[in-house]
Amino acid sequence: MAKFITIGERIHCISPVIREAMNSKNPEPILKRAKEQLDAGAVYLDLNIGPAESNGEDLMQWGVKLLQENFDNVPIALDTANKKAIEAGIRVYNRAKGKPIVNSADAGERIENIDLAAANDAIVLALCSAEGVPGSVDERQAFCMEMLERGMEKGMDAAEDMWFDPLFLVIKGMQDKQKDVLDTIRWFAEQGFKSTGGLSNISNGMPKHIRPIMDSTMLAMCISAGLTSAIVNPNDLRLMETVKSCDAILNETLFADSYLEL
Amino acid sequence: MAKFITIGERIHCISPVIREAMNSKNPEPILKRAKEQLDAGAVYLDLNIGPAESNGEDLMQWGVKLLQENFDNVPIALDTANKKAIEAGIRVYNRAKGKPIVNSADAGERIENIDLAAANDAIVLALCSAEGVPGSVDERQAFCMEMLERGMEKGMDAAEDMWFDPLFLVIKGMQDKQKDVLDTIRWFAEQGFKSTGGLSNISNGMPKHIRPIMDSTMLAMCISAGLTSAIVNPNDLRLMETVKSCDAILNETLFADSYLEL
Repeated sequence: MAKFITIGERIHCISPVIREAMNSKNPEPILKRAKEQLDAGAVYLDLNIGPAESNGEDLMQWGVKLLQENFDNVPIALDTANKKAIEAGIRVYNRAKGKPIVNSADAGERIENIDLAAANDAIVLALCSAEGVPGSVDERQAFCMEMLERGMEKGMDAAEDMWFDPLFLVIKGMQDKQKDVLDTIRWFAEQGFKSTGGLSNISNGMPKHIRPIMDSTMLAMCISAGLTSAIVNPNDLRLMETVKSCDAILNETLFADSYLEL
Repeated sequence: MAKFITIGERIHCISPVIREAMNSKNPEPILKRAKEQLDAGAVYLDLNIGPAESNGEDLMQWGVKLLQENFDNVPIALDTANKKAIEAGIRVYNRAKGKPIVNSADAGERIENIDLAAANDAIVLALCSAEGVPGSVDERQAFCMEMLERGMEKGMDAAEDMWFDPLFLVIKGMQDKQKDVLDTIRWFAEQGFKSTGGLSNISNGMPKHIRPIMDSTMLAMCISAGLTSAIVNPNDLRLMETVKSCDAILNETLFADSYLEL
């Protein structure tokens, strides 16, 4: 075990402000969100540039350098469907604070991103899905093993550098599938695998003011089951209070009455 | 699995208001706290009359009748060191909404409370401790098996009516023991045992305003590990939001956007 690793999700081209900043190479909105997330306790920052088919390599390099130069080589998850952009980003990436994360591989069309991570000594986020929603824990385990095998063939340190994602699902309409997610995470932990994923999927479509309640409860349940990381909004105060409390309960940080302020 | 069972802890003679009400047989303060807890979603009410050496039988009967007559035979945990008072309470107890809980037995001097529960077809809260704090998960398991054997000898339906308590511990000073509590709960769940306990022990001595954060995080972690019940303050809003969210995640209640208002 170790302290839980939060990956800040807020530098995402789906946000109009961020998309515009990426289009115009305007640093300010990106630096602002980076600072907000790091101040709140994010460990990694996710840098999602979207498909970025035309200018991905240039944009990812710009983004990686911008964040690392301004925030003491903050470690980054390079998030795009454009493989060349991920490789370009890794070429300018400084590893002083942690390896880059390739976001993401799966057991389907994106399985080659495991090779990419292996070739570049990077961490890979490995989504236990091929297409669509896996129907069971068993199916997730099969996808996991398939990716594990691929990573090990390519020489990866699977226990350290393959972070498996159970595929978090929306509760609205898939309520009966949430226990599968928890059981998959527990199975990852039993195998000694690291894990991560887009936890807030669970509360998609819920009224905004109650999403932090669902997200933070699910997060505590997942950490109890063995989840080691998640891609989250670190500016969700309730969520980060929960992360800090879990770290204290699992004895990964020293408890003091001021533990929430650290 | 089933919905999580909250046992409201606020009718406790340690509270000056409640002690005075018990001494003077004044119903109002007790009915007020009972209503507050039930309105917030408590399933059981704990009725703690303390040692009650002189007047325990009379007081427990008065309390049980008062609560059940005013709140539609609400099920009650009869909480006292006075065995005769528990027996007296059970004699006037109405089982329409659930069996009485004997609070509590342990593997030491209070082991006879298992016999009492067995003889009276009651649930027993079985604390996995003899004297002092158990030193390990193993020790808790040994105490559990000892009590289980006693209950089965006496004809109890152990899987239904023995609710094992891992002994929740204060985090301040016993931070490295919290994982033992979680591991013990998981082991209970693996055996098919029900479980409960005084969860808020964890936050004893913490600043009052942050106790709900620690308590609700621990509760979600414990429910994820398999805890089926807890003795809590149901008027801690964050805690009850967490219980409701866990029930939704585990598919024990139907999720709707209004799930926190139910």
